[in-house]
This record gives sequence, structure tokens and C-alpha cells, in this order.
Amino acid sequence: MRKKLKIGLFGFGCVGQGLYEVLNQSQLLDAKIEKIVVKTKGKKRAIAEENFSYIADDILEDPTINCVVELIDDANAALDIVLKAFKKGKHVVSANKKLIAENLDLLIQAAKDAGVSFVYEAAVCGSIPIIRNIEEYYNNDALSGLEGICNGTTNYILTKTGEGKSYDQALSEAQELGFAESDPTLDVDGFDAKYKLQILLKHAFGITTAPKDVFNYGIRHIKINDSNYAKEKGYRIKLFSKAHRIGPNQIAGFVAPHMIYSNHQAYHVENEFNAVVVEALFSDQQLFVGKGAGSYPTASAVLSDISALTFDYQYEYKKSKVAELPAFTNNFKVKVYVGSTNRSLIRVFPFIQRDEIFQSESYNYATGWVDFGQIRKYNFNQEESLFLAILPEPIVTLCKDESDSVSSEEFETLLEE
Amino acid sequence: MRKKLKIGLFGFGCVGQGLYEVLNQSQLLDAKIEKIVVKTKGKKRAIAEENFSYIADDILEDPTINCVVELIDDANAALDIVLKAFKKGKHVVSANKKLIAENLDLLIQAAKDAGVSFVYEAAVCGSIPIIRNIEEYYNNDALSGLEGICNGTTNYILTKTGEGKSYDQALSEAQELGFAESDPTLDVDGFDAKYKLQILLKHAFGITTAPKDVFNYGIRHIKINDSNYAKEKGYRIKLFSKAHRIGPNQIAGFVAPHMIYSNHQAYHVENEFNAVVVEALFSDQQLFVGKGAGSYPTASAVLSDISALTFDYQYEYKKSKVAELPAFTNNFKVKVYVGSTNRSLIRVFPFIQRDEIFQSESYNYATGWVDFGQIRKYNFNQEESLFLAILPEPIVTLCKDESDSVSSEEFETLLEE
Repeated sequence: MRKKLKIGLFGFGCVGQGLYEVLNQSQLLDAKIEKIVVKTKGKKRAIAEENFSYIADDILEDPTINCVVELIDDANAALDIVLKAFKKGKHVVSANKKLIAENLDLLIQAAKDAGVSFVYEAAVCGSIPIIRNIEEYYNNDALSGLEGICNGTTNYILTKTGEGKSYDQALSEAQELGFAESDPTLDVDGFDAKYKLQILLKHAFGITTAPKDVFNYGIRHIKINDSNYAKEKGYRIKLFSKAHRIGPNQIAGFVAPHMIYSNHQAYHVENEFNAVVVEALFSDQQLFVGKGAGSYPTASAVLSDISALTFDYQYEYKKSKVAELPAFTNNFKVKVYVGSTNRSLIRVFPFIQRDEIFQSESYNYATGWVDFGQIRKYNFNQEESLFLAILPEPIVTLCKDESDSVSSEEFETLLEE
Repeated sequence: MRKKLKIGLFGFGCVGQGLYEVLNQSQLLDAKIEKIVVKTKGKKRAIAEENFSYIADDILEDPTINCVVELIDDANAALDIVLKAFKKGKHVVSANKKLIAENLDLLIQAAKDAGVSFVYEAAVCGSIPIIRNIEEYYNNDALSGLEGICNGTTNYILTKTGEGKSYDQALSEAQELGFAESDPTLDVDGFDAKYKLQILLKHAFGITTAPKDVFNYGIRHIKINDSNYAKEKGYRIKLFSKAHRIGPNQIAGFVAPHMIYSNHQAYHVENEFNAVVVEALFSDQQLFVGKGAGSYPTASAVLSDISALTFDYQYEYKKSKVAELPAFTNNFKVKVYVGSTNRSLIRVFPFIQRDEIFQSESYNYATGWVDFGQIRKYNFNQEESLFLAILPEPIVTLCKDESDSVSSEEFETLLEE
């Protein structure tokens, strides 16, 4: 029997308003938005002022409301709202990846203690039903890895830099189109992509990670020379939220630009589209593509969660219930490309094994294998003179002593200058 | 609580053997193949003869077996097996699209009467979880249409003809690689794609169709001139299983080659890959890509069904439970390309409105709008001199009298010659 949902909505931004319209238009669902709580009084909104309240308890203390949809930006405020909603016996739908990534185990336990559902399909790749598929469908076909274009802003920018535009031009365009914020840090430095990766890591491999443990490097410092290098070699550059099973029951995971060839399933995913390539032992690679952001696509994911709640759906976190959970690791090597205007930086870059080096008046680059555990210590998001991207070679475990052989003193000295 | 599954397997071909290996390798599932029934005695198989039985009742009459996995070719024999399994209270997993397309309502009712589950994710697009997604996730985001590359054989052949090879060359290659049968009729004339479309129509729109009501035209008669036309205009040709909502609550559906531009989500899906583009009111277009055939990919879909059974999963056919079911219709117009070595055929082709005509010594083609209801009466799969493909214009309802204006007598006379 379907449950009738009475919804309390927090937030009436782009997605909140989309949900309001979608629920009103679709009439396919026995769910109604009873109250809407927003932060700012007197702001111009698409529907009349009398529809809004400014006090969270108007929803939280209302016993007739059985479902809270949380669509606000502030992760801390959201945490208070969600925890209180659980305590009041209300199911929660959220699209707040930061909230979820930072507090996942706490939230799962709190929902469980309260006997309510907590679902958040819209938090990862908007309209793509990736959490549900990983959770339900790839339950027994041992997942070996996933690569997600989980951030539409950076994919749009990389599409444009791939067409020859500068990063600054591409960012301005993205901002004009509403694909990028005026402060684009969360997107372009890979934080948004990391939060989403952390959620995927939980559902795909059962492991909980802290944001500080997961390396995120974005695309802010890509230069035309880097785009040209990629073009010459037949690559496109994609910012991947990547996770891969390595060695004996370990999971590598990080966010970084990747150079990929046309044989990669995500090669043709361009502009603001999101995509996830799921690799499993038997089903091989599967590609999911869709719109990752925007009012309606995100609202449709929220709506699917609401619909699932009418059937008492909740994530089972099946991968977390295995006898021996895999361990998250940063101890592996990857092959990278590093480009810089600073020749010395390229010369002393701490490769375990350098394959190529190119030097010219205007630009320099090198390729080779690096110890990821060493590289991740640097805050490359703040190193304007460098751009780094992963090359299409498998992630592999480090051989013994490989890492010890590398000196990085000179490199660190140069970085500090 | 998970249910322990004791499986009786019918068929030990490519997929059956894949399942056997996958179940043995994965150890992720509390399910065991207890008995295997095959048709032919003494055939060389990957495991020893003593593992097999040749009598269906060895499984069907065994009360300890609670799940039948049916992976045989013969749809009639499969029907007997499945119905008897239901009566004996056994859940059934099937990959037999012909069986399902031809008997869907009968099978759904029989499973319901017996109180067992009947699931068949592997029947459509192998490893792509398309039925489950349409059934579960696009529950309330009103689906407007879908376009599926549901047959890997024809997609492989069309990829090769797109590269300049002749149909015969491409077919031979597909046969050598094991992608095509020695008698390729079911694939290349679009029957396989039609059965899959019928299953998708049920889960996406709630409607049951008979095979004879759904038009299927394949790719057997594509000529190099047709491929050249596509190339010149920037098209690729894909055999789509297509369904689209038109007019007031009607669903158009058919299988035919489509010429698509690079802005189509399925444009880059090449070779033996399958894909489905799902279009919904709010979530916009979503693309699912994966391997549609092959031992392991198909077995992994069967495995996902088996896994779902341990949680008592069954399809709810939610779209069939709406107050007013949409009606399946063949009454609409589409824009087509028709190519032929026979100039007269092109000249008198029954267009409602002809847009272009091209004539030369070696080849002739025309484009324009046709009344689909009229066109579908011809068995184009048997008209060697013609190739027909849908052009990228929306399917639209016929205007009044549009159809009456067209004479097809001359065309029919020429076809008969």
C-alpha cells in the first residue's frame, strides 16, 4: 500500500522551485508540499509570500508532515534540520552532497535509530539514477571501479578549453550560462566532485571516507598548452571522480583531471552533461549519461526519491554488510602528465619513473609514474604554474622501495618560492 | 531476510555456461545451481556429463528447487517450462525475449496466480538494467519516449557499413566474430529488436502489444549508396526500437533504421554495444550504454535478477495500473529516406509530401513524409531493391485527409513485379 506523503520543503532555490512545479504538474504522485521554509524574508520568488514560512519548526514540529525535503545550501544548517526531522519521525530527502559526505555514518545511524528513510539520489549526478543502480543492481556483480563526470560546471569548461578557449574565457561563459557560480571554487577545485565520490564510495564499496582523506584536484590551472598537448595526442580531458579496486581488497579513490582516448566510454560526454562509467567483473563497463544539474533534472531525482518513499524505500547499504570491508587507500602509483611554464619545476617533479620530458621557450611538460601518496600532500589547487592530469594507465600498487627512491626536496623548495 | 535460492537451470549455451561460471566465481550470493536440464545428449560441454539431466521434470517436480532459470532458445518449449514452474510455486528468471513478447500478459497473470516472481532483465539489452530503471526510477517522471539500440548484431553491421563496407562484408565479419547467427533473420530483420521493444512498451507505458501490431523493418537491404548518403549528410544509421508518446495519450512504437546526427545521444554507440535513450518530462534525456549480449554480460543480468529474488523482488507493472492506459497506435506520420536502384520505385513511392528526389544512373533516393499506417503494410524486409530509414524529425499525428491524398497503386504494382 502506498503511503501518502505530506512534504515540508526547506529551500526554494532553483531545485526547490523546480520540485514545486514538477509536483504540481505531474499529478502522478500522492504527495503534496504542505509547507515551505526559506531563510530570507521579502525576497522576490515565483510564488506568493504567503506560501512561505521562515521558522524551521513550522515544519519540524508539525506532526502532520511525514517527509522533509531539504534543498538548502548551508550544510551545517541542513545537518540540524535533518537530525531534528529524523527525531520527529520524518523521512528525509536531501540533495546536499556536502552534508552527506561529511556526516554520512552519523546520518545513516540517526535515520536507522529513528526508523525513518534517508535518501539522496539527487545529490550525485542529478537526473542519473546512479546511487539506486549501484545499490540495487550491482549488488552481486563485484564492482571493480567507477569513473564519474559528476560535476557539470567543470565538464562544460573542459569542453570549451578542449575547443581551444582559455580557462578564463571558458569560465566566464559557464558563469554567463548559469553553469558556474561567481565563486567557482567548490566546482573547479574538485570539492563538489569529491563529495559525490565519497557518496559513491559508500554505495559501491561500502566504505566511509572523510573529506580530508580523499584527494581533490581540479582544473583551475589548465593552460592552452595543456589543452594543445591533449589535442595533439588525441586525448580529451575529463575531471573524474574515480574509484578503483586494487590489490587485496583495497579501494583507491580521488578526484583529478584525466586524459582519455576516444575508446573511453566517457569521451563523448561533453558540455554540462554528467556521466558515470561503472565497471563490474561480469557485466563489463556500463555508461550512464544525463543532466547533472539544473532545476528540472535535479527535481526529477528528488521526485523519484519521494516516490520511492511512498513504498517505504530505504538504502540497504548492502556493500557495507560484507564480512571484510575493503580499505580506502592512497598508496598506489599512477601515470601523470605535468605541464608548467616553469622549466625547473618540471625538471625536479618527483616522478618515480619519468617517461618523457619536453622543454621549450614557452612551455614544458613531462610524463611519468608518481607515488600518489606523495603527490597528494601538495595543494596543487593553489599552484598556478602547474597543471597535472592522470594518463590512461591502470592504477597499480607500488612496488617495494619504489617510493623511497624519489627525492622531492628540490621540488618542494621551488613550490615554496 | 534473504531467501536461499536453489536453482534449476534450463539450457547450457553461452549464457547458461556464463551464469554457471559467474555464480561459482562470485560467491556473493546465497544461490546454488542444483540441477541443469539440457536438450541434447552427448554434446561436448564445458563441464562433465553427470551434471546434466535431459528431463524437464527432474527440475520441475523437485520440491527443493525454488527458482527456475530458463535460458533455452525454443520459445514454445520455454512457455511450457515456465508455466509449469509457476504452478509448482517456483520463481522464474528468463532471458527469452520472444517468449515474453508473445505471452507477456499470460505469463504475468500466471505468475501472479501462483504467487511467484517472474523477472527477465537479461531479455532486454543484456547487462543494461533498463527494465528495472524504467519500472522503478521513472515511475513518476512521465516518460515521453525511448529509443533503444537493442540489437548488438545490427549495430555492429551498421558500424561497419558506416565505415564503407558492404552489408555482406559486414555480416560475414559479424558472423566470424560470433555476433551474428548463420541465419541472421531474427536480428537483421528487426524481430529481436521488436520483442525487446514490446517488453519495454509494457514497462514504460503499461501497454501490451502483439508482435503482429508492431512494425519491424531491419537493415538487410542497406546499400553502399545509402551509407554514402548518410555520410555525406553527417548521419549515422542506427536500428532503433522506438516508442514515443504522441497526441492525446497514444504511444507510437516500431523498429526501423534511423538516420541520426551527432547531437543524438546514441550517435557514438558503436559496434556491438547496446544503448537506450530514455526521455522523460522533467529528467530530460538519459543514456544507458552497455554490452547487450555475450556470455558474461547477459549472465550478470540474470544474476542480478536472481539476487533480486532473494529479496522477493517482482515487477509491479506500475504503468499498467493507471486509470487510463495509453493506446498503441500506428496512425502517425514520419519523415523518411528511401533509396533504390529502381528509379520508378522512388518516383512513385507513396509520400504524403515529398521533399527531395535524386536520380542518377546508379542510384536514386527521395525524402519526405509518409503515413506510417500505410507504409507498415508493406513487407520491406523482402524488398531487396529498396532501403528505407527514418529521418530525424519528430513523429507527429496525421492531419485530416493527409493520407487520403496519396495514391500507392503504381507503387504496389511495381513492388509486385
